[in-house]
Amino acid sequence: MRVIPTRGNPLVYASWRRAKNRPTLLIYGHYDVLPGEPLAQWKTPPFTPTVQGPNIYGRGAADDKGQLFCHVKALESYLRTSQPPVNVKCLFEGEEEIGSTNLLPFVAKNRKGLSADAAVISDTRMLGPRQPAISYSQRGGLRAEIEVCGPRQELHSGTFGGAVLDPIQALCEIVAALHDDQGRIAIPGFHDDVRDWSDREREYMARSGPSDQKILSDAKVDHAWGESGYTLYERTTIRPSLSVNGIVGGHHGPGVKGVIPTRAVAKLSFRLVPDQNPQRVARIFREHIARITPAAVESSVKTLSPVQSALVDRNHPAVRASGFAYKKGFGASPVFLRSGGSIPVVNAFQEHLGIPVVLMGFGLPDDHIHAPNEKFNLPNFYRGIETSIWYMAALPKALRSRYRTSQSSPEQEWTA
Amino acid sequence: MRVIPTRGNPLVYASWRRAKNRPTLLIYGHYDVLPGEPLAQWKTPPFTPTVQGPNIYGRGAADDKGQLFCHVKALESYLRTSQPPVNVKCLFEGEEEIGSTNLLPFVAKNRKGLSADAAVISDTRMLGPRQPAISYSQRGGLRAEIEVCGPRQELHSGTFGGAVLDPIQALCEIVAALHDDQGRIAIPGFHDDVRDWSDREREYMARSGPSDQKILSDAKVDHAWGESGYTLYERTTIRPSLSVNGIVGGHHGPGVKGVIPTRAVAKLSFRLVPDQNPQRVARIFREHIARITPAAVESSVKTLSPVQSALVDRNHPAVRASGFAYKKGFGASPVFLRSGGSIPVVNAFQEHLGIPVVLMGFGLPDDHIHAPNEKFNLPNFYRGIETSIWYMAALPKALRSRYRTSQSSPEQEWTA
Repeated sequence: MRVIPTRGNPLVYASWRRAKNRPTLLIYGHYDVLPGEPLAQWKTPPFTPTVQGPNIYGRGAADDKGQLFCHVKALESYLRTSQPPVNVKCLFEGEEEIGSTNLLPFVAKNRKGLSADAAVISDTRMLGPRQPAISYSQRGGLRAEIEVCGPRQELHSGTFGGAVLDPIQALCEIVAALHDDQGRIAIPGFHDDVRDWSDREREYMARSGPSDQKILSDAKVDHAWGESGYTLYERTTIRPSLSVNGIVGGHHGPGVKGVIPTRAVAKLSFRLVPDQNPQRVARIFREHIARITPAAVESSVKTLSPVQSALVDRNHPAVRASGFAYKKGFGASPVFLRSGGSIPVVNAFQEHLGIPVVLMGFGLPDDHIHAPNEKFNLPNFYRGIETSIWYMAALPKALRSRYRTSQSSPEQEWTA
Repeated sequence: MRVIPTRGNPLVYASWRRAKNRPTLLIYGHYDVLPGEPLAQWKTPPFTPTVQGPNIYGRGAADDKGQLFCHVKALESYLRTSQPPVNVKCLFEGEEEIGSTNLLPFVAKNRKGLSADAAVISDTRMLGPRQPAISYSQRGGLRAEIEVCGPRQELHSGTFGGAVLDPIQALCEIVAALHDDQGRIAIPGFHDDVRDWSDREREYMARSGPSDQKILSDAKVDHAWGESGYTLYERTTIRPSLSVNGIVGGHHGPGVKGVIPTRAVAKLSFRLVPDQNPQRVARIFREHIARITPAAVESSVKTLSPVQSALVDRNHPAVRASGFAYKKGFGASPVFLRSGGSIPVVNAFQEHLGIPVVLMGFGLPDDHIHAPNEKFNLPNFYRGIETSIWYMAALPKALRSRYRTSQSSPEQEWTA
């Protein structure tokens, strides 16, 4: 095992390469997690893993420590009893939640060291406890922060209210203008590269994917919202979206304070789809915010964590092999689903290593990832280990002669 | 001196009533202050009064502890050297900044105990260091809080972004809809009772009041904003305004968190003008927010601190007497100005006690009231004491036979 430093959180790498003439599987996971806030809403301490009933609670339980650990335990099972049926390279990172800023260039620079025949990532979710799912599409993303600055110093809202533009009001007007009244993102040029999908693909999605009702019940909300003309499954997978993750400005604590504040900030995240380019989106977003900012205030925009969307060929044998493994592990074949979230490295593995990425999720829709009371279902954990064991077992036959003898490729010198 | 308990912060009352056949002056001030936040922007500790150069810095230095203290020191001067030329009742409260919720009914219930011939309040500002000003008009006010609730639990913005309405976005859309693109408040019925002023009064205001340029330079902002068709002085005095004092929602700390949050809150303050009724404004505001809230989220509205606007007859002899006093104290006659802020008790004194309220300000435009680095100018403090001394001296002659022998009215039993 090696800990590979980066400019941010280090990568963790380990390999086992003694299965001659067998394919190589690259296993990826991430050990970083989101903040625990809002802490008051947790029923157990977010950073003390706590077993309650059939679940283990804690930040990262499902996203992604618990899912990552399924593969580690599968490897341990093999190593303690015989030996793995494939060569294995494990690459775990600590910056997935902030866009894999350091991993993406590392992958590009270490194609040889990371060479493999397929990659497996367990950082997605199933449809339900007995309904495994393979994600074959991931949205990309882009984070953005808009800051609006008004008066240099807080002003009395009696003395100056009506004559000086309130930066919170200006920010609200800017944010409100980012969607039209049909729920569609209203940034000129934003949809230029959004791929239109064939009726056949949309019919496949309608057959295989969750219903509007299922998505609403997973979210525990009563009312759907969004771009007209698309199902909720489509809105969250093949259509881009823009959420405001946070906003703050002025006096927001207890009590009242009659001021025009100096500044207000909103944090947003785009979810992007094929064939949008996150760098282009960043540029047109910055230009748009500059254009719609009222003259009486100043705005600035930061963008970060650009992530390209990713598509996996759902008919690739390495993907199909997961069907056998899930059947063994969970007693059911997986459905092939698109995901609304982003795993930044998926596109990089496919592009730079030229291998399919099998997104073999073990999470459940009610795992509350990114939210208080995140959990991982322990039966899923054990079934996930079994599934990983069976997946490695199935891979040599599935890939037949398609694999390279990549176990002989150099991995001693990593390029930072 | 008596401390009179209320449901909130107590009132402080003191009187001196030995000037037979002389009028009675009611002196009002408030000892409560706004919070010190944002603390990081203070150059001196906000709650440790600190003299630097010609100023004393600290929260409440000008609003209103320092100005209140001018009258206390004037009385002390009289009591240590001779005796006050008028009977005096001092009434200081601790809830001015939150709408004088307990004082307003107290005034209504204690008309006899508080009876006087005139009231003086120093809680306003002059035009400049040598330009005294009497405020003859105060805007009223109403505080409001809008809470928008979205999903019951934070949702992953990848998984659900595009299908679930973000409560921050909804709140921004609601706030943005409160003004039209001409800077006018866009709540149906809101302007129904707003008084139109005669050309003569607006000409008087144009002659006596600050220019747009002066108001912008006081605010240290470059760009004016607001309702077209009105000067900045008019926009901040005879026109109503609505400011967003604070907003908060979701993850707004360092780092990123890709969530659709559960709720977002905005704190607002209306400034109201004759003849708007704050209770009616509260009602139509609540109705309007309910009407414009998107179906996919829920909103609730709290309103508090309703304050009626107030007008003082600028030709009343008790008001005119301040001209003589300012000339003695500051070497200049006052101009008569409208104020944009609110002192809730002004309307109550006029209505329930039937007396004129002389708004004799000693503050300066750059005192940063309600903001970091609030200060009071020490030369103004000393001149304010002198002005108060001269005002008391001038009052008996000014009022001649207009005053009642109110020094004999009962004040032993206050009605809470």
